[in-house]
Amino acid sequence: MKKAAFAILALAYVAALSTTTDGQTPAKDDGPQYVNKVNLVRPADYREWVFVSSGLGMEYNPVAGTPGGNAFGNVFVNPSSYRAFMKTGKWPDRTIFVLEFRGSTSEGSINKAGRFQSRLVGLEAEVKDSRFPDGWAFFNFMPNGKTVENAQPLPVSAGCVECHTKNTAVERTFVQFYPTLLDVARKMGTVKPGF
Amino acid sequence: MKKAAFAILALAYVAALSTTTDGQTPAKDDGPQYVNKVNLVRPADYREWVFVSSGLGMEYNPVAGTPGGNAFGNVFVNPSSYRAFMKTGKWPDRTIFVLEFRGSTSEGSINKAGRFQSRLVGLEAEVKDSRFPDGWAFFNFMPNGKTVENAQPLPVSAGCVECHTKNTAVERTFVQFYPTLLDVARKMGTVKPGF
Repeated sequence: MKKAAFAILALAYVAALSTTTDGQTPAKDDGPQYVNKVNLVRPADYREWVFVSSGLGMEYNPVAGTPGGNAFGNVFVNPSSYRAFMKTGKWPDRTIFVLEFRGSTSEGSINKAGRFQSRLVGLEAEVKDSRFPDGWAFFNFMPNGKTVENAQPLPVSAGCVECHTKNTAVERTFVQFYPTLLDVARKMGTVKPGF
Repeated sequence: MKKAAFAILALAYVAALSTTTDGQTPAKDDGPQYVNKVNLVRPADYREWVFVSSGLGMEYNPVAGTPGGNAFGNVFVNPSSYRAFMKTGKWPDRTIFVLEFRGSTSEGSINKAGRFQSRLVGLEAEVKDSRFPDGWAFFNFMPNGKTVENAQPLPVSAGCVECHTKNTAVERTFVQFYPTLLDVARKMGTVKPGF
């Protein structure tokens, strides 16, 4: 009977691993990975993460007299943090957002109007992680137009933290531009007061 | 020992269920579900599927003299079919695409140019399933501006099949508008001859 008891225990353990409390398949560790504890590794599989929204040619600080850009910005978040947000309206520690910029074009195939996406032109990330002094950090994976394997946090002088503190609807994130998440944040009461 | 043998067999079964051959967590059945065998059930969780691309204001058949629309079109595919495509450049039977249309706006928060997404204005699906005479079928989940729980296949007269046969880069799908998938199809040699 010892063997049977062991096998049953092992069975229970595997069963516990194979489902979470809500019956979903288990989350792999999809949070940020680092080199030398601070340089963020470019996530290989972010295109399979949860898409939260995209915009076209958005500009927060346009330079007078210049036209807006024509890049799409696609925003993805790691799946386990997305699921936490959908339940609580808050981002757990070790949340990672990827902001992917793609060029756009109007001409191609049978398309007659509007714009569709083309090649990768920018790749950035925002991470919530208590290892950073501010609790959040920002990274650029295409500093010179080519993707790099890992990136160091952008300095405070880059202005990311300041803008993401002053102007965001939920924590340091622009949930006001992600309609499905904004609905959840409103329901959960996690939109910043005064927003 | 009978109990032990049973427990070990059960253990092996659960272990087999809990990982696939490539070590990924198991795919739930994320393919199309039907009512009465033909009406497609609106997928509840398509926003967690794999995003393939989005466009803004795309028009295939513009009416002369009218401006293009300002809706974003976000395209999602069920994860197991996406993973199959990334390996083969082909869509397996029981692939389901969801095309979500969202209104767009330029004004909001600190945005100064370009457009971002707003409320849901359309929801459609395309399914590859051998149960249909053509092997593919198309569905509209917002025929009157409100979402419905399930939808019957659109008739041939709607023109979906014809356009998706004549003008698509891979099978009946507009992979030419999904840059990451187009790269895979080219590599795998599954782009239609002459495209």
